[in-house]
Amino acid sequence: MVGIIMGSSSDLGVMQEAIQVCKDFGVAYEVDIVSAHRTPVKMMHYAQQAKSRGIQVIIAGAGGAAHLPGMVASATILPVIGVPVKSSNSIDGWDSVLSILQMPNGVPVATVALNAAKNAGLLAIQMLAISDASLAAKYTAYKAELEDKVAEMSQETKAKFS
Amino acid sequence: MVGIIMGSSSDLGVMQEAIQVCKDFGVAYEVDIVSAHRTPVKMMHYAQQAKSRGIQVIIAGAGGAAHLPGMVASATILPVIGVPVKSSNSIDGWDSVLSILQMPNGVPVATVALNAAKNAGLLAIQMLAISDASLAAKYTAYKAELEDKVAEMSQETKAKFS
Amino acid sequence: MVGIIMGSSSDLGVMQEAIQVCKDFGVAYEVDIVSAHRTPVKMMHYAQQAKSRGIQVIIAGAGGAAHLPGMVASATILPVIGVPVKSSNSIDGWDSVLSILQMPNGVPVATVALNAAKNAGLLAIQMLAISDASLAAKYTAYKAELEDKVAEMSQETKAKFS
Amino acid sequence: MVGIIMGSSSDLGVMQEAIQVCKDFGVAYEVDIVSAHRTPVKMMHYAQQAKSRGIQVIIAGAGGAAHLPGMVASATILPVIGVPVKSSNSIDGWDSVLSILQMPNGVPVATVALNAAKNAGLLAIQMLAISDASLAAKYTAYKAELEDKVAEMSQETKAKFS
Amino acid sequence: MVGIIMGSSSDLGVMQEAIQVCKDFGVAYEVDIVSAHRTPVKMMHYAQQAKSRGIQVIIAGAGGAAHLPGMVASATILPVIGVPVKSSNSIDGWDSVLSILQMPNGVPVATVALNAAKNAGLLAIQMLAISDASLAAKYTAYKAELEDKVAEMSQETKAKFS
Amino acid sequence: MVGIIMGSSSDLGVMQEAIQVCKDFGVAYEVDIVSAHRTPVKMMHYAQQAKSRGIQVIIAGAGGAAHLPGMVASATILPVIGVPVKSSNSIDGWDSVLSILQMPNGVPVATVALNAAKNAGLLAIQMLAISDASLAAKYTAYKAELEDKVAEMSQETKAKFS
Amino acid sequence: MVGIIMGSSSDLGVMQEAIQVCKDFGVAYEVDIVSAHRTPVKMMHYAQQAKSRGIQVIIAGAGGAAHLPGMVASATILPVIGVPVKSSNSIDGWDSVLSILQMPNGVPVATVALNAAKNAGLLAIQMLAISDASLAAKYTAYKAELEDKVAEMSQETKAKFS
Amino acid sequence: MVGIIMGSSSDLGVMQEAIQVCKDFGVAYEVDIVSAHRTPVKMMHYAQQAKSRGIQVIIAGAGGAAHLPGMVASATILPVIGVPVKSSNSIDGWDSVLSILQMPNGVPVATVALNAAKNAGLLAIQMLAISDASLAAKYTAYKAELEDKVAEMSQETKAKFS
Repeated sequence: MVGIIMGSSSDLGVMQEAIQVCKDFGVAYEVDIVSAHRTPVKMMHYAQQAKSRGIQVIIAGAGGAAHLPGMVASATILPVIGVPVKSSNSIDGWDSVLSILQMPNGVPVATVALNAAKNAGLLAIQMLAISDASLAAKYTAYKAELEDKVAEMSQETKAKFS
Repeated sequence: MVGIIMGSSSDLGVMQEAIQVCKDFGVAYEVDIVSAHRTPVKMMHYAQQAKSRGIQVIIAGAGGAAHLPGMVASATILPVIGVPVKSSNSIDGWDSVLSILQMPNGVPVATVALNAAKNAGLLAIQMLAISDASLAAKYTAYKAELEDKVAEMSQETKAKFS
Repeated sequence: MVGIIMGSSSDLGVMQEAIQVCKDFGVAYEVDIVSAHRTPVKMMHYAQQAKSRGIQVIIAGAGGAAHLPGMVASATILPVIGVPVKSSNSIDGWDSVLSILQMPNGVPVATVALNAAKNAGLLAIQMLAISDASLAAKYTAYKAELEDKVAEMSQETKAKFS
Repeated sequence: MVGIIMGSSSDLGVMQEAIQVCKDFGVAYEVDIVSAHRTPVKMMHYAQQAKSRGIQVIIAGAGGAAHLPGMVASATILPVIGVPVKSSNSIDGWDSVLSILQMPNGVPVATVALNAAKNAGLLAIQMLAISDASLAAKYTAYKAELEDKVAEMSQETKAKFS
Repeated sequence: MVGIIMGSSSDLGVMQEAIQVCKDFGVAYEVDIVSAHRTPVKMMHYAQQAKSRGIQVIIAGAGGAAHLPGMVASATILPVIGVPVKSSNSIDGWDSVLSILQMPNGVPVATVALNAAKNAGLLAIQMLAISDASLAAKYTAYKAELEDKVAEMSQETKAKFS
Repeated sequence: MVGIIMGSSSDLGVMQEAIQVCKDFGVAYEVDIVSAHRTPVKMMHYAQQAKSRGIQVIIAGAGGAAHLPGMVASATILPVIGVPVKSSNSIDGWDSVLSILQMPNGVPVATVALNAAKNAGLLAIQMLAISDASLAAKYTAYKAELEDKVAEMSQETKAKFS
Repeated sequence: MVGIIMGSSSDLGVMQEAIQVCKDFGVAYEVDIVSAHRTPVKMMHYAQQAKSRGIQVIIAGAGGAAHLPGMVASATILPVIGVPVKSSNSIDGWDSVLSILQMPNGVPVATVALNAAKNAGLLAIQMLAISDASLAAKYTAYKAELEDKVAEMSQETKAKFS
Repeated sequence: MVGIIMGSSSDLGVMQEAIQVCKDFGVAYEVDIVSAHRTPVKMMHYAQQAKSRGIQVIIAGAGGAAHLPGMVASATILPVIGVPVKSSNSIDGWDSVLSILQMPNGVPVATVALNAAKNAGLLAIQMLAISDASLAAKYTAYKAELEDKVAEMSQETKAKFS
C-alpha cells in the first residue's frame, strides 16, 4: 500500500496526480492530511506506525519550509518520496525544493520535481515493481504508451510542416 | 532560561556565539544536541517539555534542509529563534535559510542571518528584557558599546586619511 | 503594546494580518506608516521613543531594499520583527527577504517568511507570553485550533478517497 | 543488486559513499563508468539491459548539465536514484541539482541532496527492504545507531557547558 | 537542411519562430517531435542518422530538465543549437537554461536565450552562411532591416517628445 | 541636458517616468531609441558625440542581456545611469540587473533598481544639482513632498485603526 | 569634496580603491566610519550635514543587509553612490547588492558592481566633471590610458600566439 | 580561420583551451585582446572587418557584465560563440552567463558553459566541418577518443570494485 499525505487539503490539486497513478496501476493507497507544523504528534505517529499498518512507500507533499517529507523519513524505515509543492506562500518553489531535497546524510528523501506528484506516484510504482513482476509488466506497458503518444505528436507535426 | 540546541556538535563552532551572549548578559542557559532527523522523538520531547522545564526562549541552529527550528516551534508555544547554519552539506546557505524562514502561517520561527548565532543570542535577551528592567539596562549599555567601537574605528580611520 | 509599522499604506493588505492577530489575542497595538527612506527622522524618533511610549515589541513590514526593520532595530532595544513584503518593486521577494534577514552582528531582526504578517503577529504574542500566563494559555488554545482544523481536513479527505 | 554508475572516475570521490553503504548492508552492487555525453550508446545499453542483468535499483551520479540519471531512467523501468555532483564545471551545484531533479511527468528520478551519495545508497536499501525483512531489520538497527551517535554528542556537549 | 526538433508539440508555440526564420531565409528544414525521456531510442537514431540524411545543423528545444539538446549532441558531430523553453514544469526557466548550457567539455551545445527560438534559427543561418555567399548576403540584408526598424522607432519617439 | 535612450520603443512604458522627472524639475532632455545590438554604429556615435552636443548625463534603459548602458559608458566620459528593464525576454529581471550592474573596473554605470526609471531621473537631477543651487532647492522641496505624503498616509492609517 | 564612508574599518580593504581614485584625480575627499546599524544617530547627522559641510558626492560601502547607502540617501539631496561589499557575513554578495540597488521610487542610490569601489570613485569624478572642464580633461586622459593598456596586452598576446 | 578574442590577458588561462582545440584540429586561428568597455572602437572595427579579413567564426570570452560577445555579434554576420568567464569580479559566474546568453531576438550568441572555452573551440570546429569533410572526419575521430577514455576509466573502475 502507498501512503499519500500532504500538509493541507489545499495541496490536493497537485497531489491528486499521485493518487491517480495508484488507481491506474491498481495499487492500494490511502490519503490523509498530516501537517508537520500543525499536527506534529499525529505526524510522528503516522510515520512510526506506517510500516506496521502495511504501508510500503510514503509519498509526502508540502510547500514553503516543507518539513513533512523529511520528518516522516526521520521516523520510519520506509522509503519516502517528497513532492515539493509550489504553494501560495512559496518563493517561486525554491524553498519547497531545497527544504525537501537537501536532507542530511542518514535520512534520505527521494525528491521529485516541483509539483510533480505524478512522478512521485510512478516512482512508488517502480519501487513496488522491484519485487512484483506483474506491476513491472504494467510499467513496461506504461512506458510504451508514452512512446506512442510522442509518435502521434510526431506524425501530426510532420504533416503540419511538410 | 534560554535553551540552545543544534543538530550536531559540528554546529558548535557557529552556535557558541549564542552561548557567549547568554554568559555576557548573565542569563541562564542550557545547551544540547537535538537532531530533528536522527532523534525526532527526543526533539518532540524537548519541545513539549521545554516550557515546563523553565525554558523561556529556544534558540535552534541547523543547516541544509534545516527542520529543527520549525519542528520545535510546532510543539511548543515558546518563541523559537532559528539560526541557519552554512553547514558542509548546504548549497551556499540558501537551503538553510529558506527551510527555516519560510514557515507556514500559524507556526512562526524568528529567523536571523546565516550563521548569526550572536544575533540569535541578542534577540533572546531582547525578548527576556521586555519584562526584565535590569536586562533592558544591560542591553542599553551593550548598544552604547557598539557605538563606542565605531567611534574608535572612526578616529583611527580619520587619522589615517588626513 | 505591539507597535505595527510599515513603509506605505500599500503594505496594509499584507500587514493587516498582524493587526488581526493582536485583536484576536486581545493585545493592545498601534499602527502607523513610517518610511525609512521618505521619513527617516520620524523613523528615528519612532524607534527611540517606542519603549518609553509603552511599546514592547515592534513589527515592521517593508519591501524591496527593505531598511525599515533593521533601522528601527538600530535605535531601540525592543525586539523588532521584520516582515519582508513582496511589493510591486521587488524582485520576486528576494530583495525584501535578504535586506531584512541579513543584519550584521549586534543588531538582530526577527525575520518571518515573505508576506507572513500573521506569523509576525503570532511571534509578538509568543514574546509577550513569556511573562504573561494568560496570554500563554490563549496561545496554547490557538495551537489546539490549528490541530483541529487539520483533523477536519483529514476527515473530509479520508472520506473523499475511500 | 544495486547498479552504481557515474560519468567519470573523478566522481568516485563522491560516489564511493554509496558503494560503502551497499558494503555495510551486505547488498550486492556493481560499479561502472557510463557517460551520457561521451558514451551514449553504452548508456542506452546499460539502461536497457540493467533489469535483465539482475539489477534492481540504479544509482547514477553526475554534475553540471547532468543527463545521466534522467537518460538512464528513460530506458529502464527500474527506479533510478540521481546524485547531483558538485563537479568542477558546475555553477555551485545548481545545474547538477536542476538537471537531475526537474524531470518531466512520466520519467521520474529519485533525487537526493547535492553530493549525497550516502543517502542514495540508503534510499536504495530502503527500496530493497520493502520486500526483504532482513534488510529492513538492518535498517532499523542503522537508525538506532544514528540516534546513539547524537546521544553521545549530547552527553559531551552537556558536560562541556554545565 | 536544418533539423528542428522538440520534446513535445506543446513546445511548438515557442519553436515555430525557428521554423519561420528558415522559411524567411529560404533554407530547407524539417520538423519533428523527439523526446529524450519518452523516446530515447528514436532520439539516438535521429542523432546518429542526421548527418547522413543531409541535416547540417540541428535545433533542439526543451524545458525543465532539458536533456534533448545535449543528448543529441552526444551522438552526432553536427553543431547542435539548444533552445531552453520556459515550459509549464520549469522553475522560471532556470532548469531549462542550466541543463542545456552547462554541458561538459567534449560535447558542446550552442545555447541561446530562454525561449529564443528565433535566435536559434538565425544562428543556424549564420553557420550555413559561412560557406554560402548568397545566404551571407541575405543575412547582411536582414541586419540592415533590424537597423531600419530602430530608425523608424527613433523617428516616432523623437517626434513624440519634442 | 539629460539624454534619455532605450533599446526599443517597447521600453517607453518604463522609461517615461525618467522623462516625467525631467519635466517636473524643468530640466532639458531629449529622448531617442538607440539599440546596442541592432544599431551599434549609431550607439557609438551617440555616445561619442553626447558631450559635445550638450548632454551632461545619460540615462539608458535596457532589458535581458542589457548592453546599452555599459557600451555607452565605454565611449563617453559623461556619467551614465542604467535602468534594468524587466522586458518580456528577461529571466525575472536578473539578466537585466546583472548585465548593467556588474561593469568591470574602469567603466562605471550608475545602476538603479529594476524598472526604476523614476529614480534614474532623480539621480540625474541630483548630479546636475551639485553645481546648480536652484535645482538643489527644488530637490529639497521634492523630498519634503515625499515626507508630506507619508504624513497623510500616517494620519489616515492611524484614524482607521484607533 | 567626496565623502567616503563605510560601516566598519574591515571594509577599508575594498573601499580604499575609491580613495585612491580621488587621490589620482586630485579631488578632495574625506573618509569616515559610519555604521547605519551601530551609529544611526551619527549616520543621520552625517547625511543631514554633508552638503553644508561642502561634500558634493557621497560614496557609501556596506555588506550584508547593507542599509548605509540608502539611509544616507534618505537624509540628503546629494547623489549617493553605493558599493555593495562582499563582507564575511554576506551570502555570496547577493544581499549586499539587492539591499543597496533595490531602493524605492523617490530615493535613488547609484549602485556599482560588487566590491567595485574603484568604479564608485570614477563615477564620483564623472559627476563632478559635469561642471569642471579640467576634471573632464583628466577623465578623458584616464580613458585613453585604459585603451593603451589593452593595446599593450594585445601586442603581447599576438606575439605569443603567432 | 577562427578569431579568438577576450577582454583581458587575464582571461587567457581559460581561453587557451579554445586555442588548443584549433591547434589540435589543424584549423587556422588568431588571438587578440579586444575589450568592449576599454576599447569599444577597436572592438567595432574588429567585428566589422572580421569577415573580410577571412575569419569564419568568432570566439569571444568575457566575465562580469560580459558585453564583448554580444557587441561583436551586433556588428558582424559571422556566428559568434560566447564563453562566460568566471572572472574575479563576477558573482559566481551568473553575471557572465546571463549577460552573454540572454541576447534579444535578432542578434544571437552561441553560448557555451561557464569557462568552457574548450567547448567553444569544438563548436567552432563543428561549424566549419559543415562544409569541410576532412574536418568532419577528424571530429568523428575525436568523439571516438572521448569514448575510448571512458572505456579505460570503466575498466579501471570495474577492476577496483570487484
